[in-house]
Amino acid sequence: MSIVYLIGAGPGDPGLITVRGLQCLASADVVLYDHLVPPRLLQHARTAAEKIDVGTAAPQPLEQEAICYLLAEKAREGKTVARLKWGDPFVFDRGGNEALFLHEQGVRFEVIPGIPVGVAVPGYAGVPITYPGGGDTLTFVRGHEDDGKSRAAIDWTSLARLDGTIVCYAGPDQVAPFLSALVSHGRPPDDSAVVVYDGTLPTQQTMAGTLKEVASDVQK
Amino acid sequence: MSIVYLIGAGPGDPGLITVRGLQCLASADVVLYDHLVPPRLLQHARTAAEKIDVGTAAPQPLEQEAICYLLAEKAREGKTVARLKWGDPFVFDRGGNEALFLHEQGVRFEVIPGIPVGVAVPGYAGVPITYPGGGDTLTFVRGHEDDGKSRAAIDWTSLARLDGTIVCYAGPDQVAPFLSALVSHGRPPDDSAVVVYDGTLPTQQTMAGTLKEVASDVQK
Repeated sequence: MSIVYLIGAGPGDPGLITVRGLQCLASADVVLYDHLVPPRLLQHARTAAEKIDVGTAAPQPLEQEAICYLLAEKAREGKTVARLKWGDPFVFDRGGNEALFLHEQGVRFEVIPGIPVGVAVPGYAGVPITYPGGGDTLTFVRGHEDDGKSRAAIDWTSLARLDGTIVCYAGPDQVAPFLSALVSHGRPPDDSAVVVYDGTLPTQQTMAGTLKEVASDVQK
Repeated sequence: MSIVYLIGAGPGDPGLITVRGLQCLASADVVLYDHLVPPRLLQHARTAAEKIDVGTAAPQPLEQEAICYLLAEKAREGKTVARLKWGDPFVFDRGGNEALFLHEQGVRFEVIPGIPVGVAVPGYAGVPITYPGGGDTLTFVRGHEDDGKSRAAIDWTSLARLDGTIVCYAGPDQVAPFLSALVSHGRPPDDSAVVVYDGTLPTQQTMAGTLKEVASDVQK
């Protein structure tokens, strides 16, 4: 059946894909996956399914275009295509590009949400990202964008003033500048902060303390 | 085995629970569930399992305390307890209360994240909540809190200034005031806006347009 499933594979633990996502994966003739997708998930694809590693979760524009064309081409050959993505397809990912392209090309597709990395990682680290009586906002921040923008364009003062939880998707070298920027724009340095590495994986590590303490620790 | 699983059941479509969440549900001796949890999910519990409807996803404080005690009591009887919650246990839910209580009581527990309602509903409506080249923040807003706070305490000016996507969890009568507040605090009235009712369910309805248009339509 000609269809593309854009599937969120979740954050790393292969048990965190949805039941529907796994069903669609198991039905596919072709599987395209990011290299951050849990390798064990691929065992749920049919043995005869064609499996294509399309690289990073944030490919360069030309690579992204190639992925879009490949999705459409495989569907036009009458195949059922599973496109496995890290986290959720629409949260700081390029599922939006792929959905728009497939729509424009008249290729049938379905989006199957995944557990966003920014939700699962604090959960596995035991951190309630919202709490009754706590703040009324929860903001996810993209630490970087790989589209030629070297740094996220963020209104830091507004971000620091929102009295709620902030979750930043950051590479290792982005953590310290992010924490410093929050403090220098007015977020109280005594607020709680947690930094998690390798979230949801067996190698997960957590650093917790005040914003000031954690900012100091990550620089060591 | 004495354990409590705090499980996110996802937003409504029963296929959106995680594989791990379903496994834990199927292993349970006792299931406590919110009334927003998809009823079909309960068919995956063992026939002999005790199934307890604990009401709304946002119970009053005394009810919440009773739920916490019940979770701990059932686990102390040596039972495997599945606590099924709408969406994700830590995103605008009271999973944080339950996790803290179980921790204080020395009861073993595990958190299994769920697809947050604010991620799945736009996904099913075909709306990429983030997009390459778009804003670098994604903010979820609690439309109300049932803790005696009649209205969310939000820094509206900061919220309106963040140049990213905003997703509000709102009851039907909260939609119009929310949209108006954003515009009156400076969010451009020509920005895109979507309102979704009954998201991910067969009865799902979507209204889309500019912020100004949608704000006007919902008041009709």
